[in-house]
Amino acid sequence: MSKTMLAVVKPDAAPGAEIREVKVPGFGRNDVLVKVKVASICGTDLHIYEWDRWAQNRIHPPLIPGHEFCGEVAAYGDEVTSVKEGDFVSAEMHVACGKCLQCRTCEAHICQNVKIIGVDADGAFAEYEIAAKTVAITGCGPIGLFSIAVARAVGATTIFAIEVNQHRRQIAKDMKADFALDPSKEDVRAIVMEQTGGLGADVVLEMAGHPTAIRTAFDIVRRGGRISLLGLTSKPISLNFSEDIIFKGITVQGISGRRMYQTWYQMTALLKAGKLDLHPVITDRIAMKDFSKAMARLKTGEASKILVYPNGMK
Amino acid sequence: MSKTMLAVVKPDAAPGAEIREVKVPGFGRNDVLVKVKVASICGTDLHIYEWDRWAQNRIHPPLIPGHEFCGEVAAYGDEVTSVKEGDFVSAEMHVACGKCLQCRTCEAHICQNVKIIGVDADGAFAEYEIAAKTVAITGCGPIGLFSIAVARAVGATTIFAIEVNQHRRQIAKDMKADFALDPSKEDVRAIVMEQTGGLGADVVLEMAGHPTAIRTAFDIVRRGGRISLLGLTSKPISLNFSEDIIFKGITVQGISGRRMYQTWYQMTALLKAGKLDLHPVITDRIAMKDFSKAMARLKTGEASKILVYPNGMK
Amino acid sequence: MSKTMLAVVKPDAAPGAEIREVKVPGFGRNDVLVKVKVASICGTDLHIYEWDRWAQNRIHPPLIPGHEFCGEVAAYGDEVTSVKEGDFVSAEMHVACGKCLQCRTCEAHICQNVKIIGVDADGAFAEYEIAAKTVAITGCGPIGLFSIAVARAVGATTIFAIEVNQHRRQIAKDMKADFALDPSKEDVRAIVMEQTGGLGADVVLEMAGHPTAIRTAFDIVRRGGRISLLGLTSKPISLNFSEDIIFKGITVQGISGRRMYQTWYQMTALLKAGKLDLHPVITDRIAMKDFSKAMARLKTGEASKILVYPNGMK
Amino acid sequence: MSKTMLAVVKPDAAPGAEIREVKVPGFGRNDVLVKVKVASICGTDLHIYEWDRWAQNRIHPPLIPGHEFCGEVAAYGDEVTSVKEGDFVSAEMHVACGKCLQCRTCEAHICQNVKIIGVDADGAFAEYEIAAKTVAITGCGPIGLFSIAVARAVGATTIFAIEVNQHRRQIAKDMKADFALDPSKEDVRAIVMEQTGGLGADVVLEMAGHPTAIRTAFDIVRRGGRISLLGLTSKPISLNFSEDIIFKGITVQGISGRRMYQTWYQMTALLKAGKLDLHPVITDRIAMKDFSKAMARLKTGEASKILVYPNGMK
Repeated sequence: MSKTMLAVVKPDAAPGAEIREVKVPGFGRNDVLVKVKVASICGTDLHIYEWDRWAQNRIHPPLIPGHEFCGEVAAYGDEVTSVKEGDFVSAEMHVACGKCLQCRTCEAHICQNVKIIGVDADGAFAEYEIAAKTVAITGCGPIGLFSIAVARAVGATTIFAIEVNQHRRQIAKDMKADFALDPSKEDVRAIVMEQTGGLGADVVLEMAGHPTAIRTAFDIVRRGGRISLLGLTSKPISLNFSEDIIFKGITVQGISGRRMYQTWYQMTALLKAGKLDLHPVITDRIAMKDFSKAMARLKTGEASKILVYPNGMK
Repeated sequence: MSKTMLAVVKPDAAPGAEIREVKVPGFGRNDVLVKVKVASICGTDLHIYEWDRWAQNRIHPPLIPGHEFCGEVAAYGDEVTSVKEGDFVSAEMHVACGKCLQCRTCEAHICQNVKIIGVDADGAFAEYEIAAKTVAITGCGPIGLFSIAVARAVGATTIFAIEVNQHRRQIAKDMKADFALDPSKEDVRAIVMEQTGGLGADVVLEMAGHPTAIRTAFDIVRRGGRISLLGLTSKPISLNFSEDIIFKGITVQGISGRRMYQTWYQMTALLKAGKLDLHPVITDRIAMKDFSKAMARLKTGEASKILVYPNGMK
Repeated sequence: MSKTMLAVVKPDAAPGAEIREVKVPGFGRNDVLVKVKVASICGTDLHIYEWDRWAQNRIHPPLIPGHEFCGEVAAYGDEVTSVKEGDFVSAEMHVACGKCLQCRTCEAHICQNVKIIGVDADGAFAEYEIAAKTVAITGCGPIGLFSIAVARAVGATTIFAIEVNQHRRQIAKDMKADFALDPSKEDVRAIVMEQTGGLGADVVLEMAGHPTAIRTAFDIVRRGGRISLLGLTSKPISLNFSEDIIFKGITVQGISGRRMYQTWYQMTALLKAGKLDLHPVITDRIAMKDFSKAMARLKTGEASKILVYPNGMK
Repeated sequence: MSKTMLAVVKPDAAPGAEIREVKVPGFGRNDVLVKVKVASICGTDLHIYEWDRWAQNRIHPPLIPGHEFCGEVAAYGDEVTSVKEGDFVSAEMHVACGKCLQCRTCEAHICQNVKIIGVDADGAFAEYEIAAKTVAITGCGPIGLFSIAVARAVGATTIFAIEVNQHRRQIAKDMKADFALDPSKEDVRAIVMEQTGGLGADVVLEMAGHPTAIRTAFDIVRRGGRISLLGLTSKPISLNFSEDIIFKGITVQGISGRRMYQTWYQMTALLKAGKLDLHPVITDRIAMKDFSKAMARLKTGEASKILVYPNGMK
């Protein structure tokens, strides 16, 4: 096995990243060394690349980013029993402490001491319990787009995708949203109300983190419905608690990370059963050297999910 | 409006039924008179026709049976506000008392004083919360067959239909069950275990009411899984509580009737969204005069759901 | 039976109310006429009395207010079967339409067309599923105080009552809150954190509707915990969605009205079993003529729940 | 630290046990060595002692039994960070594999590969979600008795304890059951129906494993109620599925083990808050040398929970 490998490296506390030759990491007796076959780029990676305020507070360069991948087991420690060399694997990158109240009561995804390999916790896309329901999704980044496919697979009846960027709206249509609405031009509330017999949407997945989108979420959810908040906001947002939450009797749920490991089992089952076609979201496949170009395409919204092949594209 | 109409009538406490001219019923100030366009035949109707032990205990002839239908509003009482003449409607035939504890706490479907127009309570076919789950259905009468379509629509990954009658297995395949197994010839447990990675099915819907099918249900459900019992049994069945329920930590749920009215909203939503294709279950369309022939076809399993047109077949 | 009776009447769109002689109301064939024995005064009645902005928008005088009471059946219509003359009764004052989606799916308490006899919907005090949990209550008006008793009865381990008014804090202690904290003088967050091993409260019931109290609610709820919002707010409140809801993975639930009729069964069961001592909350018992004095005592917080005896105090 | 210690040892595949001097066990880098201060005797220990059929199939002597205890940390491995020497601790004795579907989806208590230190999995006593409900408990061994205390603490309104042994009925009364009924002399069904207004019990906890008790459980549960099965049965039991489960619309839940670790947190919270008085169940406190006498008292039902002090009784 080679002693070195190529990697995307963020060397300093500044925008950008470099492709560098680095040491292959060592591994402990419970660890598995994985040779990455394909990685994909998350919005978080773009934050790190651009070195925005969030990244400045959170990231301590030098760092090799990336937390979405699959690959082959290259080697493993003495106490590993669940995989063997050559196995095709991915990994849960949230490392929960296993000892806090949340970890011990099925809420490891909001562990008090969670560490994220690569960087830190990002959004979740699994939304269940939506059979025979109408679902609206505000914000169609990759997570929003994936959630269209999941909603479709688990029996949502009408799916409204709400997104200002035209590239993303097109992908939303390709993912089989029933409506891909442009809130800058269309009266989203009127359309949702008309299509739901004046009730509003049963479930709203807020994936934008933008004040206008959040406002829309509260406007279109039906009485007794549910809003799941996933899009991170950068500043406080004003809300009329009486009108927006109490009188409507709605439930607002903050979603951080994913339930470990139910979500792995659920996605595996849906993928194996051929219920999820995620291809339209994967807009680009690149070699690692083109990392910076990929970042530019992400910013315009032309690219959605980008796959990075560290070892060539086959 | 005509004063009389043709009807299927069970005149006496004996097998069979007749087509007779009867009076059009009157209606009170809160009632709606519906001109039936199509009715369908339920297993219960066959019990009444055949005059089996259950029917002998339950039914008091003369009776016009039939509790599944659609039609047009022909007339209505002074206090009716929700429909008007000509509306195309169906009806909830369970009439719950509205005053008992169950009625007042969202369990009207098991009302202590329920009356069923036409006859009495029969099984339900709505099974939700099964997204990304493996589902086994023991017994493929019409309700079992419909439940395949529902399970498919709400995201079940693998569906096992288990049925001895070959006609019914064929319809199960047409309804898109992944496996249509013959328990008289195939090792159902071995197949389910192999297809679920040795775990067993997440959910089993027992629709047969036969001791062998019930035994199979307990054998193939996974640890921590759920069995919903819908098929009525005629005699006691022996069960090993420790091995079958306790050590496996399963939940067994008796299902009688349907949750009113959630199930109407759910079915409406799935049908409107084009998620349910129920055509394969509808094997026969008959004029009312052929009622007795239909009963014969039901008994062999050649017919599944039969539609009856009282006023001609268009 | 007398043709007239005394009543508290709000004659005009202005502050105040009068005691007047009015006609005993008639009743329809499904109605029950109740002779009120004791009524109690709700915060809503104070709003109507004071004629604040909410009342100006909502109330159409002349009106006889009052929606909390018990009494005896004096007479009833032809179709009434569930009570007879002399029965001691109370009444559900939310009149739901029975026909909308919410009504038909166990959410009649947020019926789209709800009418409230007396006036309109106010908060709920039933909070279950809190066995073995730590509960914080922000705002100790009558509903907040009752919720202390309920939380105690259903197994809450530590109860924090948070309230600026000293009279109300004293009643909170009498209701067996473990801590009655004054947020204007004490560091509520520090105390809750210390008492919960640094976790925060499992459940927070927000009953104040005041921006500071709402801020406190979000500060003291634990990761994965729940905030139930009952206190009505009069203006928008600013919230940091990322920090306050998403990263903590909490659930925020708007509560309007009470689930009908589960809450009646639950309260009846707890009261019959002697699990709820509500006496400390009942601070005043008055004759109807002293209605205005009672309103003054409510405003200072000296009075909490006031019982009004229209027919003398025994 | 001494190299040897006294222990209860089951040396051979035969009835009985001995007190012997054995080696103090070693410990690995993730292990904690605990000096037992008090242990208590479980029904399982009696099975092992008596060497009944279950024990013959399950136990491989020599074995030091015992899986309920508390004590002090005497020493610990290099990688242990959560305790230190002298800490007062107990332990979860179910060791789940951590890798199967059940372990990864919050159902570790029914892990496919669970190992139980001491012996094997026994029943659970935590039953929640019973606030404002009527609860019946069939079988008042220690777990049944503890469940009375828990039901009381979490807001059950009426508690029926059903038990043939007079010693145990007395303890049930001391634990504050409202009724302690002798099914060999009293008409249990009639009494439960009378006390619940003809409805039946909301929740039945079946802790006896005896066919008559199980029959009673199904007879007294209300429509739409729940039966939790904990008592292990030794032979098949006959059940009328239609009448007993389906028409009543009940849920039957097999309970094996306890949810890890929610039950630890819940019990800790209830005990700390002083909500549980478990003293009446603890009938005997013995020195380890009296182990055999204790077994005799357990068999007659005179003793319920017995505490064993390996190092003297203070």
